[in-house]
Amino acid sequence: MSFTYNRTVHFRDTDAAGVVYFANVLSMCHEAYEASLAVSGINLKLFFTQPTVAIPIVHASVDFFRPMFCGDELQIHLTPQKLRDTKFEIGYHIIAASSSEHPLAQAITRHVCINPTTRAKTQLPEGIIKWLSSNE
Amino acid sequence: MSFTYNRTVHFRDTDAAGVVYFANVLSMCHEAYEASLAVSGINLKLFFTQPTVAIPIVHASVDFFRPMFCGDELQIHLTPQKLRDTKFEIGYHIIAASSSEHPLAQAITRHVCINPTTRAKTQLPEGIIKWLSSNE
Amino acid sequence: MSFTYNRTVHFRDTDAAGVVYFANVLSMCHEAYEASLAVSGINLKLFFTQPTVAIPIVHASVDFFRPMFCGDELQIHLTPQKLRDTKFEIGYHIIAASSSEHPLAQAITRHVCINPTTRAKTQLPEGIIKWLSSNE
Amino acid sequence: MSFTYNRTVHFRDTDAAGVVYFANVLSMCHEAYEASLAVSGINLKLFFTQPTVAIPIVHASVDFFRPMFCGDELQIHLTPQKLRDTKFEIGYHIIAASSSEHPLAQAITRHVCINPTTRAKTQLPEGIIKWLSSNE
Repeated sequence: MSFTYNRTVHFRDTDAAGVVYFANVLSMCHEAYEASLAVSGINLKLFFTQPTVAIPIVHASVDFFRPMFCGDELQIHLTPQKLRDTKFEIGYHIIAASSSEHPLAQAITRHVCINPTTRAKTQLPEGIIKWLSSNE
Repeated sequence: MSFTYNRTVHFRDTDAAGVVYFANVLSMCHEAYEASLAVSGINLKLFFTQPTVAIPIVHASVDFFRPMFCGDELQIHLTPQKLRDTKFEIGYHIIAASSSEHPLAQAITRHVCINPTTRAKTQLPEGIIKWLSSNE
Repeated sequence: MSFTYNRTVHFRDTDAAGVVYFANVLSMCHEAYEASLAVSGINLKLFFTQPTVAIPIVHASVDFFRPMFCGDELQIHLTPQKLRDTKFEIGYHIIAASSSEHPLAQAITRHVCINPTTRAKTQLPEGIIKWLSSNE
Repeated sequence: MSFTYNRTVHFRDTDAAGVVYFANVLSMCHEAYEASLAVSGINLKLFFTQPTVAIPIVHASVDFFRPMFCGDELQIHLTPQKLRDTKFEIGYHIIAASSSEHPLAQAITRHVCINPTTRAKTQLPEGIIKWLSSNE
């Protein structure tokens, strides 16, 4: 039931070692997160720019197994999991579109829902609850 | 006969003013260029990473007409033009996918073909000549 | 009377061709602009994030003369010029810190002052007038 | 004995939520790593672009405690640690330059030394051993 995001590696993603710059792998994962939110009916502009609740990332980690090159066709499989009423985690598996056998990288992002003014923890909004239940 | 590249604005493209960071518009245009090369049969990894000839950008310019927001669906229309045996230029028109009437931005990149070792100008390779003729 | 910004080329600035990715040269120029504003006493957080007036870039152009590599020490010389009561332009000259003879790149950004809500043109604020007069 | 890297938050580091985009915190940490290598006498261009050994990042993680805004003056404290003859890890503590009491973020990157052609693990080079011993 995970969500799949197709992504070509762009020249801008790479660095002078000839492969994707490490931190850009997390940016690609965030793109996958955005795409899955959009599919679930969430308005990205309102969600990220003028939110009634903010859901910042409080932790991210990433493991790199194989290098990714400009032009590579990737699949990012995203699986979110609710941790508490105020918190969820997303797991990402990145594989080559041409071969699912050898994962290229995996990552995790952890998100906490807060009041954007007071920064106190608050309950996840309905749209996110729906997105969680349809992708878990 | 121009090539069209569809692109959603990602959160990473934006800045604290709430809109796409100016230099990222040129990065999106370069993505459109890469996509058009791939459609033309050019291997992006070899073309950008281990080239027999290099075709660096020697000039770029961009005009911004309207702000672009996270989640916006864009169309980038790309039209290349051969300038000389060693040189071409690409024009980009960026519009909202929902409305072609009001352009959001336009840009130009100019590319010169060189020997990657000596950096002397050299003739555009056959693959680029073919790409030019199919998109001009 | 131009402002000078010293900048080392970071690994993240580069691409798989081994040199600075073209659009990142404009990002470096914007860093120089930010540094010159800060020196002039402008609070960058308020200026860029919660402005009473917004001063978006409406045009940018850049010419590339020589490639820049990871670890290169650059100097960016910035010279702003008032164009009208609502508009200014900044010229940037990028040279190697080790040799001023051969410019690496040059760029221009053009900025228009607007009301962030109505997007109508409005007069440049006092802080910018002061910054212009001290760097012109 | 840790190395300290001073870094102003640039506009390009931020996103439409008004704060530093999460993955860019890791990019800033990598800048600190590059700066500490340069201080140790390592040539960054050769090290990252034409290496005799490659030392890719195999793991990265980051925790975010407080938001960072455009113009914020940061200090990144970097402490490397040798794990094996082929492997080291770097810990990063990011604090506001104005107040060391409240950390803003912390991160880890893990690096493995490989032969760039065969990708087999190989011993860390002498320059890195020296850098490790002077910063541990």
